[in-house]
Amino acid sequence: MTNRLKEDLIETSQFGRTPPKKIESYDQLDPEKGVVRPDGTEGNKKIRDYTVARMKEAGLQVKIDKVGNIFGRKEGSSTDKGTVMSGSHLDSVINGGMFDGVLGVYTALEAVRRINDEGFENERPLEVVVFTGEEGSAFTPALLGSSVLAGQVSVDEALNRKNAAGQTLGEALENIGYKGSFESSLDDVEYFVETHIEQGPVLDKEGISVGVVDGIVGITWIMATILGEKNHAGGTPMKARKNALVAAADIVSFVNQQANEMVDKLGSATVGTVGKLNVFPGGITIIPGKVEMGIDIRDVVPKNLENLENEILKAMEDTRKKYGVDIRTEVQHIHVPVTPSAEVVNIIDSSASQVGVTKKRMVSGAGHDAENIAEKVKAGMLFVPSVNGKSHVPLEWTNWEDIEKGAQVLTQTLKNLSWR
Amino acid sequence: MTNRLKEDLIETSQFGRTPPKKIESYDQLDPEKGVVRPDGTEGNKKIRDYTVARMKEAGLQVKIDKVGNIFGRKEGSSTDKGTVMSGSHLDSVINGGMFDGVLGVYTALEAVRRINDEGFENERPLEVVVFTGEEGSAFTPALLGSSVLAGQVSVDEALNRKNAAGQTLGEALENIGYKGSFESSLDDVEYFVETHIEQGPVLDKEGISVGVVDGIVGITWIMATILGEKNHAGGTPMKARKNALVAAADIVSFVNQQANEMVDKLGSATVGTVGKLNVFPGGITIIPGKVEMGIDIRDVVPKNLENLENEILKAMEDTRKKYGVDIRTEVQHIHVPVTPSAEVVNIIDSSASQVGVTKKRMVSGAGHDAENIAEKVKAGMLFVPSVNGKSHVPLEWTNWEDIEKGAQVLTQTLKNLSWR
Repeated sequence: MTNRLKEDLIETSQFGRTPPKKIESYDQLDPEKGVVRPDGTEGNKKIRDYTVARMKEAGLQVKIDKVGNIFGRKEGSSTDKGTVMSGSHLDSVINGGMFDGVLGVYTALEAVRRINDEGFENERPLEVVVFTGEEGSAFTPALLGSSVLAGQVSVDEALNRKNAAGQTLGEALENIGYKGSFESSLDDVEYFVETHIEQGPVLDKEGISVGVVDGIVGITWIMATILGEKNHAGGTPMKARKNALVAAADIVSFVNQQANEMVDKLGSATVGTVGKLNVFPGGITIIPGKVEMGIDIRDVVPKNLENLENEILKAMEDTRKKYGVDIRTEVQHIHVPVTPSAEVVNIIDSSASQVGVTKKRMVSGAGHDAENIAEKVKAGMLFVPSVNGKSHVPLEWTNWEDIEKGAQVLTQTLKNLSWR
Repeated sequence: MTNRLKEDLIETSQFGRTPPKKIESYDQLDPEKGVVRPDGTEGNKKIRDYTVARMKEAGLQVKIDKVGNIFGRKEGSSTDKGTVMSGSHLDSVINGGMFDGVLGVYTALEAVRRINDEGFENERPLEVVVFTGEEGSAFTPALLGSSVLAGQVSVDEALNRKNAAGQTLGEALENIGYKGSFESSLDDVEYFVETHIEQGPVLDKEGISVGVVDGIVGITWIMATILGEKNHAGGTPMKARKNALVAAADIVSFVNQQANEMVDKLGSATVGTVGKLNVFPGGITIIPGKVEMGIDIRDVVPKNLENLENEILKAMEDTRKKYGVDIRTEVQHIHVPVTPSAEVVNIIDSSASQVGVTKKRMVSGAGHDAENIAEKVKAGMLFVPSVNGKSHVPLEWTNWEDIEKGAQVLTQTLKNLSWR
């Protein structure tokens, strides 16, 4: 274990935490008190400042772009080959964990530091990147900084996004001193690799140190409002009811069953979840007249995702007829599935073998900055285990041994990519 | 149609309504603005004052008991026969309708007025009663005034109940001038009849004017908390989930199916409803870790109610095992089924035939003061139709023709009972 990486992660764990406290081990975590570091907050400024100082200490040339993305560059021995970029984000959800995003920035920085220490000569330039607003916890949509870098969202559009207090991203960045002047692009970038915590239980449960991501799920949301008839639970016979919640229960069950069946039959990575469900009026003696629900479905195979969406909409039509309720739906295609570059995936995989770290091919069930970058350059991701699969909560944790192994695989990967 | 009854109901429809407005027809109802008349409010004082004035005008001897129940008495020609009592309540739910309770008080008053007008000689004394706090909208539990009259709740206990503002019922009654001095009892009462709106769709749908209530349902509540595992909807494979909402959906479906099956197989009046269901944390991308639900089950047959409760608890145990969730339950037996006096039921039924009004035997799915009184004296109820089955909402309505028919049946019933 290199103490430098561990020390940086312990040091940064205090930023945005109230009261500030450095966490060194799982048993020091407070299940109620996590980190709060949306862009523009004091905690966000502190972790950015600390990171820029570490980048400069490592000899990197630091630049801030117009939307607050931070780039730390080490030139390569060749001047005409594209850059190998690696990094993630430093912002957090409200009351989140200490590793989400931070780990991807610091393993990248640590890889460059090790490359420096070893005197390894990188042919391609190496760049450590920090993306603004990955979580969307202050300025929506999520993945905002990488969307700008990948040219999907304009600089002006991003800077004019407002947080809940009505402040624009531009103002928030100005306040914390991170509204840079240069307009970044991926024009000179060839490869991108992001290390991230898994945010699921697979690696932890199987005792494997590194996940080699060979697919990033697409996400579709189906927002549905079911309209039945609100009535007295005592006075209304069973046969005279239009119970919106009974209809909703059928849909909840269907989404769960259908996703499970797809996993069983296709061996797919399909997931389907009703996470949001509000019942109106909600009194125990009143037959629900309205239910609002939000369905999240994900798959790495575009056809699977499309089929599941269609099956759910068909089931809703059946439910509508069965109960005589009205169902209004709005489908939001949050993003399509992304297939990482096979070249990068293979190099991550073989790098893990080179350094003797256990690994497994897997899909990412969450959205990440890498999926934006993958639209423009050859990109890949590696995961390290999340203890008990927890993320976006104060108890998010990854064991130090696994962090070290992830750093070793990333370092080897960047070395290998820098000479391709 | 006797204009006097209609006029009183139009007059009282303004009390507790903001702005005050007298409602004469369905199309004058505002779906947002109903009546607010919990005990102790200005609207409650006004409708009590108006009613006492009408009782006195009709020559009734008015007394207020210690918990604010109002009695208006007309002596009978015999001095040793028990009283025939009829009435209901004047308090309302928050933003309720103009007929719930009020109709039972004013049809009783109107019956006595018609008996006066006709010079009909009643052998037994007749008493019009107004019960305090039927709805439980200010002071819980519901049916408070009739519970005291029936000896189930002590006067002191009732007077010390507090509303949301911390005021006791005693203080509230004092404020509006309805804290009487005499302690009432049912010792000299022989019969009780309550007219009420159905609060369900049956009579309206079938075009029948009067329901003769031959059973009042018992009510059991099962409050359940389902504990699963909150996790990221993207990162957690289907097979690694403990989704509290998927478990809850099975229970919602089971309650509905089981109640429907009992109706089909037993021809019972069983109802089962999940009206309350709260999902935590409730974000679209988060697998629900907790669901709180409230289940309301009702039946007039004690054994049916008990069986349904047991079936639901058994289904919860199956659900617990199937999904590996934890389920905590708390069963509340709100009240047992009540069978009205067969003698009174038969007299209401034959009275309807005497005056040529269509009627049908049915059960009451809601709780009413009559169920408390039925524990001590021979009691019965008659229903008039609720348009579209609506109650406890501003759009609660009963057509004037049906109100008149209900008044005719009640008048004949009180006449018949007064000579038994």
